[in-house]
Amino acid sequence: MPDKEFYMKLALQLAESVIGQTSPNPPVGCVVVKDGRIIGMGAHMKAGEPHAEVNALMQAGDKAEGADLYVTLEPCSHTGKTPPCANLIIRKKIRNVYIASVDPNPLVGGKGADKLRDAGIFVEAGICEDVSRTLYKHYFHFIKTKKPFVTLKTAVTFDGKTAAASGNSKWITSKEARMDVHEYRHRHDAILIGVNTVLADNPHLTTRLPQGGIHPIRIVLDTLLTIPLQANMLHDSVAPVIVVCGKGAQQSRQVALEQLGVQVKRMPSDMIHIDSLLTWLGEEQITSLFVEGGSTVHSSFIQAQAFQEIIMYMAPRILSDDKGRPVFGGTPKELIKEGTPIAFQAVEKVGPDIKIIAVPKEGGEDDIYRDC
Amino acid sequence: MPDKEFYMKLALQLAESVIGQTSPNPPVGCVVVKDGRIIGMGAHMKAGEPHAEVNALMQAGDKAEGADLYVTLEPCSHTGKTPPCANLIIRKKIRNVYIASVDPNPLVGGKGADKLRDAGIFVEAGICEDVSRTLYKHYFHFIKTKKPFVTLKTAVTFDGKTAAASGNSKWITSKEARMDVHEYRHRHDAILIGVNTVLADNPHLTTRLPQGGIHPIRIVLDTLLTIPLQANMLHDSVAPVIVVCGKGAQQSRQVALEQLGVQVKRMPSDMIHIDSLLTWLGEEQITSLFVEGGSTVHSSFIQAQAFQEIIMYMAPRILSDDKGRPVFGGTPKELIKEGTPIAFQAVEKVGPDIKIIAVPKEGGEDDIYRDC
Repeated sequence: MPDKEFYMKLALQLAESVIGQTSPNPPVGCVVVKDGRIIGMGAHMKAGEPHAEVNALMQAGDKAEGADLYVTLEPCSHTGKTPPCANLIIRKKIRNVYIASVDPNPLVGGKGADKLRDAGIFVEAGICEDVSRTLYKHYFHFIKTKKPFVTLKTAVTFDGKTAAASGNSKWITSKEARMDVHEYRHRHDAILIGVNTVLADNPHLTTRLPQGGIHPIRIVLDTLLTIPLQANMLHDSVAPVIVVCGKGAQQSRQVALEQLGVQVKRMPSDMIHIDSLLTWLGEEQITSLFVEGGSTVHSSFIQAQAFQEIIMYMAPRILSDDKGRPVFGGTPKELIKEGTPIAFQAVEKVGPDIKIIAVPKEGGEDDIYRDC
Repeated sequence: MPDKEFYMKLALQLAESVIGQTSPNPPVGCVVVKDGRIIGMGAHMKAGEPHAEVNALMQAGDKAEGADLYVTLEPCSHTGKTPPCANLIIRKKIRNVYIASVDPNPLVGGKGADKLRDAGIFVEAGICEDVSRTLYKHYFHFIKTKKPFVTLKTAVTFDGKTAAASGNSKWITSKEARMDVHEYRHRHDAILIGVNTVLADNPHLTTRLPQGGIHPIRIVLDTLLTIPLQANMLHDSVAPVIVVCGKGAQQSRQVALEQLGVQVKRMPSDMIHIDSLLTWLGEEQITSLFVEGGSTVHSSFIQAQAFQEIIMYMAPRILSDDKGRPVFGGTPKELIKEGTPIAFQAVEKVGPDIKIIAVPKEGGEDDIYRDC
């Protein structure tokens, strides 16, 4: 039987369908219901274009008066690139507004709901909030920290190697897992690798899904600007490329890259500090970052505690190679406990592979380990 | 509604409950049913003691006449340490016999079922056969190959390390995972480690479950007989110890060990060949072997393709240690494909850890990889 959760789940599905195409705005879905019939549905399609509520209400037209509106994120009450949605909802004489998540953005932050209530509309927030928290993990993190949500992605053999001694790594995982990676690329604003991956694989880092997909901005960490000027990604023109270097990198290399249309970001220190990088990326409105690094790049994010999610694809193959490349590295440790605690969030099969999703351990050390 | 599967599942549960205590015999469960009532149930408890059918039929007593009998493995028709069960079933005037798995043992191999049919009893085999194949994986492998079923067990960090650079490995995994390991020890005839683990951890390798458990025979691979004579397991007298050495090991060390009641098995070659070892263990009636090795021992089993199952406990911790110990080693490889293909059979959470169960890939190379 259609109940509040039924309609909100639909709104959440609409929002999920546009993940990756709304940045820096969050994905939002909206459903308008009157007398047991859906009379309008919509999502926010692209930054600068109408919000989900506008699309759904326009579809409902005159019938919207007295209807109920389900929306995955609190309607805005401020004028951004488009007028405030709360005003439109009031003008359309909506009776009840159901919200999944209140917007933590200080520009909204409960003010949207208050404005509706002041106009006599019944407002209930928190419907299917668990699902919406997952939907908004990138957005909430970005709003709270002003830095992108960082997803580290890696593909390993059963024995934790990302490449053979020779450097060969094509392919550790299955086609299914690689297709899953393209889905993540589509859903992130930017993708990041180290220059060594450019040298080894010369990748395009584009999104190649069966029906296309959105290409992420491509970011290369390259302290000394040693990226070859003929690298594939510098010439395919499908998405911007940002090369990040240290303050000591040669000026002439920067000029040569800029002549190719590449943005060069020179950091104020000799080495690239992950935290400063993320602060800058946040300022650039990059809300989510997909890191497809090798051991060095990943390890620098882990050491900086600068990750919100790790996606590990594990292939059903034992490499048994003493010189094979380890997934993460770092300085030798005395105790196992010195490692970084994480928590497993989900494990699933992807084709013949396993996908393990891990997140930083909340509250640090686990009791289970403390007393051993 | 109680149907054939209902009663067979009960018989399978009875059998599962005695895994680990019947070796070298397989675990068998039996249920006798008449007029919709269970009138007898039983399992084979220990080699040399009555079979499951005998226990269940004795419990049913005179009421057995005209009853149905559910048994997880085909009743035997030969005289071993006990008389053939088929004869007793016939004598008790059972009407129908339902069997999960036919016994691949050439001494039985359909002969039990034939004998019952010849006596006019209706026999149906293959009830819940999938479940019984898992139940009998150790036994079927042993009967077919005359070698023990080999389970490799390992515990790793998220980045595939079994110890920090310092050698510290206590504890990678949680109490829950370690308890799960004791369950496996209980269910295997023997446990095997390398002498390096004796030197590093001085373990007892006993089964410590909340309600006790059966201690496996302890086998140490020790090519040169360098095991310390004061090692814990040589003095706790709770289960036999077998030390396996190469042909070049010092005779005096062998004598010293034998004086402690230890069995020393000297292999005919300088190095210990896994295949010869397994052949000998099979002759010793060891039907299942739980290998808790480090990288070297595990790698030798993998290289010899001598494993039927791998249990990997993965802890939610990133060690990030360049010198940390890798789970499996071996000679450097040119291509990822040169690794050993496996298949993931199951993944489950055990406390905060993940348990991954893998098996050798049947039919070798996977199509998914072949064309990449």
